[in-house]
Amino acid sequence: MAQEARETSTLIGSDKVDGTAVYDAEGEKIGSIERVMIEKVSGKVSFAVLSFGGFLGIGDDHYPLPWSSLKYNVELGGYQTMVPVEKLKGAPKYADESEWDWSGTRTRGVSDYYGVVM
Amino acid sequence: MAQEARETSTLIGSDKVDGTAVYDAEGEKIGSIERVMIEKVSGKVSFAVLSFGGFLGIGDDHYPLPWSSLKYNVELGGYQTMVPVEKLKGAPKYADESEWDWSGTRTRGVSDYYGVVM
Repeated sequence: MAQEARETSTLIGSDKVDGTAVYDAEGEKIGSIERVMIEKVSGKVSFAVLSFGGFLGIGDDHYPLPWSSLKYNVELGGYQTMVPVEKLKGAPKYADESEWDWSGTRTRGVSDYYGVVM
Repeated sequence: MAQEARETSTLIGSDKVDGTAVYDAEGEKIGSIERVMIEKVSGKVSFAVLSFGGFLGIGDDHYPLPWSSLKYNVELGGYQTMVPVEKLKGAPKYADESEWDWSGTRTRGVSDYYGVVM
């Protein structure tokens, strides 16, 4: 059976990742993935940039999350994070793309903040 | 120094992968990446879909390549493949998205064709 070429049960096209919903531990939708950051050499996704669309009362801020803090939930049809909303509120973020330096210390601080090894 | 948020020397945003140039072993541009297919659970890029834009005389066909057959070349500013153009010409491809089943045997045949372990 032919399936849509941009998504299957196990694979998702890079052009379809944008906009995929993100849910909290309780299964509440908290936002969506704006883009993922892919390591050019290894092909490994290292960060997902979350946009919360004002849900947390913070407008259009962008939150880089370590990819490992998101798990795809087939039933929800989106990614789920176990990071509490309260922790997200205080997380490293940027409002304007030009102010975030992916190769800088703030990026390294993201994994420290979430307590994951990249 | 602030850098553009969608690309650094080591990371590239999923929304910027689309359209990244692909070069052959001699450094000639042969096409561009249309999208990459990301494993939902692991976050690993498994395939890149190449569009050759008629360069090979085959119109708008789409060629799924194992990600491991592409290496990012910083000098070229794009991905380079050591797969000979002659081998690409006979590779698994699709013209219409609806005819490719990413979960099917043709997809598994891609890695066999290129002789790589996924």
